Amino acid sequence: MTLPQQVRIVEVGPRDGLQNEPGTIPVASKLQLLDDLAAAGLQVLEAGSFVNPKWVPQMADSEIVFQKLRRHPGVRYTALTPNLQGFERALAAGADEVAVFAAASESFSRKNINCDIGESLKRFEAVMAAARDHQIPVRGYVSCVLGCPYEGPIAPEAVAGVSAALLDMGCYEVSLGDTIGTGTPGSMATLLETLLACLQPEQLAVHCHDTYGQALANILVALQHGIATVDASVAGLGGCPYASGATGNVATEDVVYMLDGLGIETGIDLVRLVHAGNAISSTIGRSSQSRVARALGNPLQTAAPA
Amino acid sequence: MTLPQQVRIVEVGPRDGLQNEPGTIPVASKLQLLDDLAAAGLQVLEAGSFVNPKWVPQMADSEIVFQKLRRHPGVRYTALTPNLQGFERALAAGADEVAVFAAASESFSRKNINCDIGESLKRFEAVMAAARDHQIPVRGYVSCVLGCPYEGPIAPEAVAGVSAALLDMGCYEVSLGDTIGTGTPGSMATLLETLLACLQPEQLAVHCHDTYGQALANILVALQHGIATVDASVAGLGGCPYASGATGNVATEDVVYMLDGLGIETGIDLVRLVHAGNAISSTIGRSSQSRVARALGNPLQTAAPA
Repeated sequence: MTLPQQVRIVEVGPRDGLQNEPGTIPVASKLQLLDDLAAAGLQVLEAGSFVNPKWVPQMADSEIVFQKLRRHPGVRYTALTPNLQGFERALAAGADEVAVFAAASESFSRKNINCDIGESLKRFEAVMAAARDHQIPVRGYVSCVLGCPYEGPIAPEAVAGVSAALLDMGCYEVSLGDTIGTGTPGSMATLLETLLACLQPEQLAVHCHDTYGQALANILVALQHGIATVDASVAGLGGCPYASGATGNVATEDVVYMLDGLGIETGIDLVRLVHAGNAISSTIGRSSQSRVARALGNPLQTAAPA
Repeated sequence: MTLPQQVRIVEVGPRDGLQNEPGTIPVASKLQLLDDLAAAGLQVLEAGSFVNPKWVPQMADSEIVFQKLRRHPGVRYTALTPNLQGFERALAAGADEVAVFAAASESFSRKNINCDIGESLKRFEAVMAAARDHQIPVRGYVSCVLGCPYEGPIAPEAVAGVSAALLDMGCYEVSLGDTIGTGTPGSMATLLETLLACLQPEQLAVHCHDTYGQALANILVALQHGIATVDASVAGLGGCPYASGATGNVATEDVVYMLDGLGIETGIDLVRLVHAGNAISSTIGRSSQSRVARALGNPLQTAAPA
């Protein structure tokens, strides 16, 4: 197998994860989680979202989180910014990087953000221009790349179109989201073969959901295609299989365990990572969705690393 | 990716799975499970074990199960037989195939069956001879191929040695068991490269446990190495992550979902398979460990297929 020597993990638990967990999470718990993750060696932390708090009440405190978080050297703290107002708030709060998001499915785009894909991209133009002015890197998320809850399978060409558009607009990287987790190593391979005919592996990341248990196998296929950036959510935050609206984020612990086993460098300390995941799981009152964390013992029995 | 066009699933839930679940399962439930699995298209069903019932009380009724099961045409009903006495009982009960088992780890062999690997192989000689006389195919299981609870990592050469010995003794196939589920795509690839230097892919099967979430990724690597026989346990029976002694068998539903997505033929109807898994999970009073089954809905809401 030809695989990348190093993989960059983008930890989305504090934003994408917690946003999809029920209940309100205190700012102090979010700060602790960010601190634990940085201590575990994560270098990219999606720390908040500057959207209308009416839509996403769990992220209403993102300003405070950014203001209070203890910055670790070399760690990039990122935020989701759907529009110029959000970008300006993120900038004022001190985000190192922002992200915009579009769908590969027209139906999902309309139901999720109430406009078609083309309009959604237009809305980001102001964000891209402002980010350029302030030299803030912008990441692009594309959702539904391997399936849509309304349309079913999505043509790889549709994913290629919206990915290329985001890169052309100035995104440095596009994260390919298998939002409903229906993808398999087969559809992932087909998608990547289409994308890599016109894009470079360095421009792409994968964001796999484990809803159908396929996430690690899909990530392995991405690695085999030269993709070296992987999104993951500690403890599978946001992915509780019993909660309504479950998204099934792949657990960072399980990804790191696999990468360690493949001899791929991540800079992450798995034991500390498991501790971070168990701590936040305990705080929000649910069991970790990471199989590695479960295998390594009951959350309450796992001592903090020295 | 070069992959097999067809994969044979060896369904181990009724034996390896139920043996590791707490409580006593009524014969009628075992018969229903076997019937449901055959109706779903499974063609190899590990239906029981002829061992001393003192050691494995859950399999004490294997004679009755074999006598009462409704045979579906084309389905092979197999049994575990550790010694000649077990083989004779299996033969009398009408097993189509038997299996013997050895470990790749000396420590595990001693702790599990109280003798070293060499002695364990000698004990099977009588079984092999009797099976030859009666033209009963014998499968060999090798445990701890990617790690041992006592020794940690296991040298691929040790696995190659015991696998070759079992094949030399007359086993038609060796099933490589990642008993504690610590294997990764990296260690699986290294193991298979060692084994395939002296053995053919048609002589090998993989038996992956999902304890660390790696099973499907490991199976994918096996497929990429030409292995076309995969052991799996419906609903992840035997693999409840909260039970003591959890073995973490990979769920057949999740394997079949992946194979379907890879365009690999199995002859299995996923919807019926999910029904079979949900039914036995409901019977033994726990939730299915299959992510596919969970994603497709609450067990109690899943109607039987027409």
